[in-house]
Amino acid sequence: MGNIGAIFATHPQRPPDPSLLEACVAACYDCGGVCAACSDACLGEAHVADLGCCIRTCLDCSDICLTTARIVSRLTEPSPMLVEVQLTSCAEACLICAAECERHAAMHEHCRICAEACRECEQACRALLHGAEAGQQ
Amino acid sequence: MGNIGAIFATHPQRPPDPSLLEACVAACYDCGGVCAACSDACLGEAHVADLGCCIRTCLDCSDICLTTARIVSRLTEPSPMLVEVQLTSCAEACLICAAECERHAAMHEHCRICAEACRECEQACRALLHGAEAGQQ
Amino acid sequence: MGNIGAIFATHPQRPPDPSLLEACVAACYDCGGVCAACSDACLGEAHVADLGCCIRTCLDCSDICLTTARIVSRLTEPSPMLVEVQLTSCAEACLICAAECERHAAMHEHCRICAEACRECEQACRALLHGAEAGQQ
Amino acid sequence: MGNIGAIFATHPQRPPDPSLLEACVAACYDCGGVCAACSDACLGEAHVADLGCCIRTCLDCSDICLTTARIVSRLTEPSPMLVEVQLTSCAEACLICAAECERHAAMHEHCRICAEACRECEQACRALLHGAEAGQQ
Repeated sequence: MGNIGAIFATHPQRPPDPSLLEACVAACYDCGGVCAACSDACLGEAHVADLGCCIRTCLDCSDICLTTARIVSRLTEPSPMLVEVQLTSCAEACLICAAECERHAAMHEHCRICAEACRECEQACRALLHGAEAGQQ
Repeated sequence: MGNIGAIFATHPQRPPDPSLLEACVAACYDCGGVCAACSDACLGEAHVADLGCCIRTCLDCSDICLTTARIVSRLTEPSPMLVEVQLTSCAEACLICAAECERHAAMHEHCRICAEACRECEQACRALLHGAEAGQQ
Repeated sequence: MGNIGAIFATHPQRPPDPSLLEACVAACYDCGGVCAACSDACLGEAHVADLGCCIRTCLDCSDICLTTARIVSRLTEPSPMLVEVQLTSCAEACLICAAECERHAAMHEHCRICAEACRECEQACRALLHGAEAGQQ
Repeated sequence: MGNIGAIFATHPQRPPDPSLLEACVAACYDCGGVCAACSDACLGEAHVADLGCCIRTCLDCSDICLTTARIVSRLTEPSPMLVEVQLTSCAEACLICAAECERHAAMHEHCRICAEACRECEQACRALLHGAEAGQQ
């Protein structure tokens, strides 16, 4: 995701230090893609009836991560309060999805990988939230 | 949007009274579409330089409305806390976008229409939020 | 979806007759929402193992319909060739999803409703495609 | 984007050689994110009135890339014809966006980076299309 960071570095309203921002946006796109793929892998498993909650949770997390990535990566005329509540929603979606995927991690390797991506994304969202509150974004 | 309501009415996990849910989802799709179209209409105006904030706000609101519509319309294994924070984000996005569009409503009819769609969507999100808190959803 | 039509009517680059455009965009948002809800209703059915293909097809159709609605509703500096290929993809997604949902229509009312929404959206996409080819858009 | 590849490698319907698939999906998410960020950077430029076409083209390309990434990364019960037409649409969107961004590449570094991401994504889509036709996917 070096390309996204390069865009931020040349943006007319770039922040002084975009490192937390770049890490968060990269994690959101990664997690959004991984969750979409994991929901599909679950759908293809023989015991799909046991994975309904996992599929739904992954679909929510994928939608929210991709939308959050866009909101956060718009630096022109931002609304800090909207960014904060959307980051909070994304951290919550990742927390729920990680917990659900971890329940199947021993059985399905794709769930183990997805849970890890969710944990990383949750942390990146919270780091940006705390940075924003501290006036660093 | 009668079709979405008909789907909810035949969903295996349908709520006892899906009227607030149906109104919220319909308003989210309507507002998501209207905001995308308004951002493009602003982009086509001769004085686009004065409309940068309006374009950005509409893009955010469109992304958040469409994602919120999906989260809320999934009734299988829902996470009430995630639904609540995403509805809060959507109401906030609509509030911001309505206020910005209203600043240009006298000049651009598409901004006046968009502001109205945002106000309706904000109210529908808050009505569902309050209904959910009251245990009605 | 009267609001979207009102936006087109006040767009600085509005076409002389936006009726096919308005019908197509309204059908795309309707079908995008219905397919998302139908995939979730299928996921909640007791016999979800028989509905894997239906869920996947609905997810594809929902994603493509919502993206196509946005592409088509942008009237500023459009690329006719891109609009045509994306409309073709959307008509194809609707055709596939309608055929799959019809297989379960007798068993699941939500699949019957979804198949109808897909047929309507396919026709609206093809009508706009033919109108565009005839230079009417 | 190693996480997405790891998901494919553990998917119950994984293809024998997912290398073209993985490269395409990674390029689509990268380009989808870069185009969203470039449209916002253009919106923040002093001469935004000269960048209307670039903003619109980037918004289309971002929407199409993210949707294409999802369609292509679903391996359960795929529809090869739908995958092909959506990949064609994505390659076309990338071609148009690269050409438009290249016009501003000397002036705006974010447009130069975006044009490169579009070229890479176009090639990855075409490589997967040709691989699919050759029965390799």
